[in-house]
Amino acid sequence: MTTRSWKIQRYDHDVHQEVDDEVASEYPLTVVVNDKEFATMVCTPMNLEELVIGFLASEGIIRTYEEIERLTIDEDRGFAYTQTSKDIPIRTDVQKRWLGSCCGKSRAFYFQNDATTAKTIMDSFTITPSECYDLMESFQLEAGMFQRTGGVHQAAIASPEGLLKTYADIGRHNALDKLFGYLLKEKVKRKGKVILFSGRISSEVLLKISKIGLGLLLSKSAPTDLALELAEDLNITAVGFTRGQRMNVYTHHRRVQAPVQGGQRLE
Amino acid sequence: MTTRSWKIQRYDHDVHQEVDDEVASEYPLTVVVNDKEFATMVCTPMNLEELVIGFLASEGIIRTYEEIERLTIDEDRGFAYTQTSKDIPIRTDVQKRWLGSCCGKSRAFYFQNDATTAKTIMDSFTITPSECYDLMESFQLEAGMFQRTGGVHQAAIASPEGLLKTYADIGRHNALDKLFGYLLKEKVKRKGKVILFSGRISSEVLLKISKIGLGLLLSKSAPTDLALELAEDLNITAVGFTRGQRMNVYTHHRRVQAPVQGGQRLE
Repeated sequence: MTTRSWKIQRYDHDVHQEVDDEVASEYPLTVVVNDKEFATMVCTPMNLEELVIGFLASEGIIRTYEEIERLTIDEDRGFAYTQTSKDIPIRTDVQKRWLGSCCGKSRAFYFQNDATTAKTIMDSFTITPSECYDLMESFQLEAGMFQRTGGVHQAAIASPEGLLKTYADIGRHNALDKLFGYLLKEKVKRKGKVILFSGRISSEVLLKISKIGLGLLLSKSAPTDLALELAEDLNITAVGFTRGQRMNVYTHHRRVQAPVQGGQRLE
Repeated sequence: MTTRSWKIQRYDHDVHQEVDDEVASEYPLTVVVNDKEFATMVCTPMNLEELVIGFLASEGIIRTYEEIERLTIDEDRGFAYTQTSKDIPIRTDVQKRWLGSCCGKSRAFYFQNDATTAKTIMDSFTITPSECYDLMESFQLEAGMFQRTGGVHQAAIASPEGLLKTYADIGRHNALDKLFGYLLKEKVKRKGKVILFSGRISSEVLLKISKIGLGLLLSKSAPTDLALELAEDLNITAVGFTRGQRMNVYTHHRRVQAPVQGGQRLE
């Protein structure tokens, strides 16, 4: 339950084969405190009891375990019901809510804001494996601060021919937001473009890629299952573990194509 | 400005020397939308304009750059003032607020909740360098799912003699919350205990360690400057880049001590 099998295209240089890979599960859990929804988080679905206790303590809702009078977890529906001995004023308008399976998209749209801003990517350009490897190599070479301090994420926009702009931040989301801001301000066409990202492909990262409006994500790290479900739904090609002359294509493989002699690139 | 110099004790086996190291800067930026505080985020202080534009777009506040009528950034005070062309209903009670330098602690206490639950650690036990290396080695060996799927963080509680309990999650904070929940439920004494963490030491991670009540954090990754400021204030020994027989001690070095022949461990 903490991992899930996923059929991937494993590339080694230009050669690829379909194999079963194992990806980490991402599971949305809504915590209800004294009959009011408090928060929805995504997590690895094990040790949920400890998670809820620790989360409530981190948020300052409880100070001791004894302040939790009841704790019931409905694993199938993804709810944790808690009752505390003290009456805690919970602002129910503050928190993000589960939306169910709206808009015909997957259950991963648990934040209202995401459901309204995520968009399905219609871009159908293609890229070759060696273009992917070259882009990742350039991306890594730009990682000056990351390599010096070890604490920074990077996001870049590229065409298959090369990197166009790179941003760095200690926050994964900030690096992507900086890139998003640049694209909006400079009105950069998204068509035929690729995004490179140094971090793990979580559902939140994938949603951000979709909001930005890009169809191909190259990462050197691993994806989660929920991110891959979203990538399937939103028509995004998710590529992980891009290292040297190897990479894993998890979704919408058609955008990665070996070069055709005398052929033309699809735009 | 994106990195900062920090005096560290660099260990190689039992030998250490003080050197100047470079750590990533973490900078709190409060975004004001139409005269109302919208959110405070921590980020790397460069490309703040792009960050604010992209953040507003990610949050669904704007859809085009033109919807921002004004954007002024006060870098010294850490504020970004924005005015949007559409009147956006911002719930001001929703967001986390900056608190200023309360409680005589550093400016990193920007979330009210943190200011009330973070505590200064009084624990004064010591650990030897080789105990640190051994703990990290055991911790890495437990990283089964992490190694298979590449997408999971780990947090563990240990005594200098060995690991006591390890939790994993795709979310950095969730792994720490699970550990916190366990410690609360089982009433595990914090005195003389160490926390091991697979991820980067950010200010949020450091605050969580302090809420959990532990005095020594061993990580294989890098810290940020804000995390180190907090570690100084809260009396936490932060150790990063623990790899093989090497590690960097960033703060409160006194808890790491080479073994004394015939001596007794301080408790």
